[in-house]
Amino acid sequence: MITVGIVGGTGYTGVELLRLLLRHPNVQVQLLTSRTEAGKYVYDMFPSLRGQTQLQFSDLDVDALKQCDVVYFATPHGVAMKYAEALVAAGTKVIDLAADFRLQDLEQFEKWYGLEHACPELLKSSVYGLSELNREKIKQANVIGNPGCYPTTVQLGLAPLLRADKVLIEADRIIIDAKSGVSGAGRKASLGMIYAENADNFKAYAVSGHRHHPEIVEALENISGQKGVFDNLIFVPHLVPMIRGMFSTIYVDLTDHAVDIDIQQLYEQFYAQERFVDVMPANSSPETRSVRGANQLCIALHQIQPKKLIILVAQDNLVKGAAGQAVQNMNLMFGFAEDAGLNGIGLLP
Amino acid sequence: MITVGIVGGTGYTGVELLRLLLRHPNVQVQLLTSRTEAGKYVYDMFPSLRGQTQLQFSDLDVDALKQCDVVYFATPHGVAMKYAEALVAAGTKVIDLAADFRLQDLEQFEKWYGLEHACPELLKSSVYGLSELNREKIKQANVIGNPGCYPTTVQLGLAPLLRADKVLIEADRIIIDAKSGVSGAGRKASLGMIYAENADNFKAYAVSGHRHHPEIVEALENISGQKGVFDNLIFVPHLVPMIRGMFSTIYVDLTDHAVDIDIQQLYEQFYAQERFVDVMPANSSPETRSVRGANQLCIALHQIQPKKLIILVAQDNLVKGAAGQAVQNMNLMFGFAEDAGLNGIGLLP
Amino acid sequence: MITVGIVGGTGYTGVELLRLLLRHPNVQVQLLTSRTEAGKYVYDMFPSLRGQTQLQFSDLDVDALKQCDVVYFATPHGVAMKYAEALVAAGTKVIDLAADFRLQDLEQFEKWYGLEHACPELLKSSVYGLSELNREKIKQANVIGNPGCYPTTVQLGLAPLLRADKVLIEADRIIIDAKSGVSGAGRKASLGMIYAENADNFKAYAVSGHRHHPEIVEALENISGQKGVFDNLIFVPHLVPMIRGMFSTIYVDLTDHAVDIDIQQLYEQFYAQERFVDVMPANSSPETRSVRGANQLCIALHQIQPKKLIILVAQDNLVKGAAGQAVQNMNLMFGFAEDAGLNGIGLLP
Amino acid sequence: MITVGIVGGTGYTGVELLRLLLRHPNVQVQLLTSRTEAGKYVYDMFPSLRGQTQLQFSDLDVDALKQCDVVYFATPHGVAMKYAEALVAAGTKVIDLAADFRLQDLEQFEKWYGLEHACPELLKSSVYGLSELNREKIKQANVIGNPGCYPTTVQLGLAPLLRADKVLIEADRIIIDAKSGVSGAGRKASLGMIYAENADNFKAYAVSGHRHHPEIVEALENISGQKGVFDNLIFVPHLVPMIRGMFSTIYVDLTDHAVDIDIQQLYEQFYAQERFVDVMPANSSPETRSVRGANQLCIALHQIQPKKLIILVAQDNLVKGAAGQAVQNMNLMFGFAEDAGLNGIGLLP
Repeated sequence: MITVGIVGGTGYTGVELLRLLLRHPNVQVQLLTSRTEAGKYVYDMFPSLRGQTQLQFSDLDVDALKQCDVVYFATPHGVAMKYAEALVAAGTKVIDLAADFRLQDLEQFEKWYGLEHACPELLKSSVYGLSELNREKIKQANVIGNPGCYPTTVQLGLAPLLRADKVLIEADRIIIDAKSGVSGAGRKASLGMIYAENADNFKAYAVSGHRHHPEIVEALENISGQKGVFDNLIFVPHLVPMIRGMFSTIYVDLTDHAVDIDIQQLYEQFYAQERFVDVMPANSSPETRSVRGANQLCIALHQIQPKKLIILVAQDNLVKGAAGQAVQNMNLMFGFAEDAGLNGIGLLP
Repeated sequence: MITVGIVGGTGYTGVELLRLLLRHPNVQVQLLTSRTEAGKYVYDMFPSLRGQTQLQFSDLDVDALKQCDVVYFATPHGVAMKYAEALVAAGTKVIDLAADFRLQDLEQFEKWYGLEHACPELLKSSVYGLSELNREKIKQANVIGNPGCYPTTVQLGLAPLLRADKVLIEADRIIIDAKSGVSGAGRKASLGMIYAENADNFKAYAVSGHRHHPEIVEALENISGQKGVFDNLIFVPHLVPMIRGMFSTIYVDLTDHAVDIDIQQLYEQFYAQERFVDVMPANSSPETRSVRGANQLCIALHQIQPKKLIILVAQDNLVKGAAGQAVQNMNLMFGFAEDAGLNGIGLLP
Repeated sequence: MITVGIVGGTGYTGVELLRLLLRHPNVQVQLLTSRTEAGKYVYDMFPSLRGQTQLQFSDLDVDALKQCDVVYFATPHGVAMKYAEALVAAGTKVIDLAADFRLQDLEQFEKWYGLEHACPELLKSSVYGLSELNREKIKQANVIGNPGCYPTTVQLGLAPLLRADKVLIEADRIIIDAKSGVSGAGRKASLGMIYAENADNFKAYAVSGHRHHPEIVEALENISGQKGVFDNLIFVPHLVPMIRGMFSTIYVDLTDHAVDIDIQQLYEQFYAQERFVDVMPANSSPETRSVRGANQLCIALHQIQPKKLIILVAQDNLVKGAAGQAVQNMNLMFGFAEDAGLNGIGLLP
Repeated sequence: MITVGIVGGTGYTGVELLRLLLRHPNVQVQLLTSRTEAGKYVYDMFPSLRGQTQLQFSDLDVDALKQCDVVYFATPHGVAMKYAEALVAAGTKVIDLAADFRLQDLEQFEKWYGLEHACPELLKSSVYGLSELNREKIKQANVIGNPGCYPTTVQLGLAPLLRADKVLIEADRIIIDAKSGVSGAGRKASLGMIYAENADNFKAYAVSGHRHHPEIVEALENISGQKGVFDNLIFVPHLVPMIRGMFSTIYVDLTDHAVDIDIQQLYEQFYAQERFVDVMPANSSPETRSVRGANQLCIALHQIQPKKLIILVAQDNLVKGAAGQAVQNMNLMFGFAEDAGLNGIGLLP
């Protein structure tokens, strides 16, 4: 039984962490901070937790955080990096659900987030928490940068191709047409997020540049071991009138090397041991509702021409795309069963 | 051709007024004010108006407003009453879509809106703009208090009973279970209004007291000519995950006088000449989508027991419940055809 | 560990039972029947179950059902009653999620469901499975009629008043204005259920008579021990554009006996030991999303006048209103912890 | 004033035609057929039309259709081609909203629709009704094949590039990631279309081949005058949980010829005179709700790299994608103002 703290517990990733951690067999949630709600019972803000916990929000107190075995930051970008060094020094592990420990390239970080990094040294030793791809490093890590939701779909959608012995895809021709439910934007009082502006509507956004773009590029470079080849990658996010759910349609040009390979089999073997990645039969149609509330990511391959592959990836942006993967990383860090606390079946309908 | 000004054009009633008035055959929209968006093209805020108008938002300038034949206030409560006297003095008619000219009872106004009334004398001569019930007065009015959305459904739903020669219902036993789409709360950056808090959800709100309650009571008193008999009226509003639409389920106890009356016929005759009130066949099921975008209110009667009547009322809260009725009132005030600019058929689906 | 069969596994209550039972610590789901899908893997119909089970749909085979300790019927009305006697004779317990064992009044059953009852004797010894109110009888039962979704909200919403020593409410004045998400109508190819007819829409339905009406009346009679007093009860269901969720607004007239009683306290004490009924603080606003996916029912009281009480009740129609309560009943019947398999926290958002 | 008939009036394109034609200044809707609903008042099926028309559905009677100046077929594929010759012979013009007159390639038609064409000669003289691109031919046409919804977005999204003097794009590299609201599937009792299967969900469908694919290819060939160059075009449709709305994200590789061209200006000039095509400022974000109910198509260009262009196209699938364009074609055929009956402003919100 370890003790857990959550910094920034009033957003959607915060309450989602609580949903998972309050049922985790190896964990005791010790504290939950909020700048604005200190003293309030958690269940008064999130009535789904009535009867489930007596936790109250507290002010952020570093000494209290140091008492925890692990601290999650479900905060805006730039918060975790201020506290991570002190926590690590005290033996507390850190999992940041924001972007502070996602990008190793400091220049990119400062360009896209407008922040100078507070602990570049610690960043270097931190581990990017894409559980399936960095499992061994995660087990040893003190600080985890939990991946962005879009980058999770792209990495798991492309990894079997990028990790192959030969170059199977044209790296400079990848197109990612991504779609997210509205909860991906967080829990904020913003005009653009209100119901009547989003219901019965569809649009693209951030076409000229989304913060997950550099994260995707750096991550694909790391997976493939090839720098600079993904600079022309195209990534266009769209907003879907649904609460949860994320769907990426990835268009890939295959190389000559790929023509003789059974791509479907490649994926099935690559993920054969993975509890949370589901390679569906070829030409399947994954749906976001199939993974609603579940730490599951579904992949379906459509090789529509010998050298044209379409990869469909679906996940729940708040679970495998955020809180669920964070718990999965914690499980790895502390030697728990990787699916501890993550066994819930999705809501269908 | 008259000239029109709109004060407060950035909310949902503002853009709905524009949708209707830009196609009105007798009207030229002259100006549109916004405290925050002056100088901006209207179509940059509301892209549905691209190509429809070259209007820009302007600062509120009383002299400019005085040049208009009529000025709509699509503003928060308390704005129209500051400018109405000056406008009327200049010969400009005023239609307020907020609450400044709805309640004649000043005490109630101050209690529910927390504001002292700025022009109680003008209030006395203003007219409550429920078009079907106050038509003759509206024609003569200089200042109109446009009814609240909920009160419109209740008044038109009960008027035939209340205007009858004999007392047909037990006034102290009326129960109104009302439901509104989310646009009824306006266009505001508020946490409670964001998509992920409202989609796939249903709740009651303001059970202990909603500002439309005193308006309903005063209006029913005026319709029936009986003071004090509606004090026990129960009104419970609920929030529905839809953009537009309002539905009231009204439970009424009939008196002995009603037993021999054909209530369905009473309603049909009462509204026989009304273009915008549709008395459906007995036991029908009105749906809000049938009036989406239309200045239409549907009524269906279910007399489930000899002395128990259920009245179902559906409207589009932004049209017959707000902007549409405001235009209808303007048509009456200026002698236009009552349905000028209001002939659009609703979107189904 | 007991063995479980599910008859009729292709509807929403069927897949919801699977979601709960596949994670139940004391249960092995043995078989799942479908007339139309025999041989198909369950996960091919419900992709949320991919990786969770290797079950295939099978034809209904009574001998196979007899091998189970308990059989759920998630079928249309009229199926369970054909098989129940044979199963009980073989020592298999039966939980019917349809209406075959809800109404003891055979005349009412035949009137509302158009079916002659196939086993009136067994019906007499069956138990109505409102877990909180009939717990002791359920423990001994061989056949359970699992309550309808609406009746669950009404019974739990009114029971503390009806079980009191004195008559606290005017039984002939109860009004229930109820609202349900669309999944309540099941999983059927029906024009009235398609997306474009239900999204962004609100309506009442079955105002002149809903099958849950006689169930509510009989159940309230049983709870209060008073026959015939609820004949004037009014029940109006409405359809809400959401997948899951049910909300009842219950209007009650209190008697003189109630005036000196602390109704809030009465409810809190009545449900003090109940894990799945949450009496919220007085004047709260329950929301259906707070119980999305959870076996939870929330009650909030609004005593708006000394003798006028409004009771708000929220549940997930597929969980506490159907499959969850069915599992709760099974737990009682087999002596499991009452919350075994029912501990999941709802999805918020 | 011309007389109009509509064959197949019970679907969504049928009721949308009625919404537009009942307010069209030059048109009298004479008859409306339905195989299943003959004798029923139209408003009883579509309550949004209560008070708007006294039309009743009638059986399909060719002689009655011949009395009309123009007949719309809002029917399944394969109906219009059975009647078109007789109607044309009688001097009645035909506008088919299904696919019978879309594809000139008979082999493709039979392959994708499983039907032998009933009037190949008439097909040759029929005109593909993409109003902006085929205006002069449409004016002379007796038979119009009204374009599919997806193909409309693709053609108008690409036409300025394809009609240029030089080859500006790599024709074999076009990728269309398209998204549609659920009404695009029509009004059918189908399990896959019910609310609980579509709400809060996102998926791709028909990835391996959609009937609009050959239509897109043939249309682009016709626009560009180049056969065979679009065979590698990729088209992936997705389903969005909204009623109306269609959005295409088109990925294009520009050629060297394009580098010196101002693409934004090219589009603006190409559509400068078009009332219903809105080229938004470069890098804009069109939204489907901006055109809800309006015969409008919005285009926004994002040239994210010198040789990479992303074209965003939004329309209402039932209006510019179906009924609105059909009316626009009729206006051209009969010499009416092109926007007659099509001036409505979209509903926002």
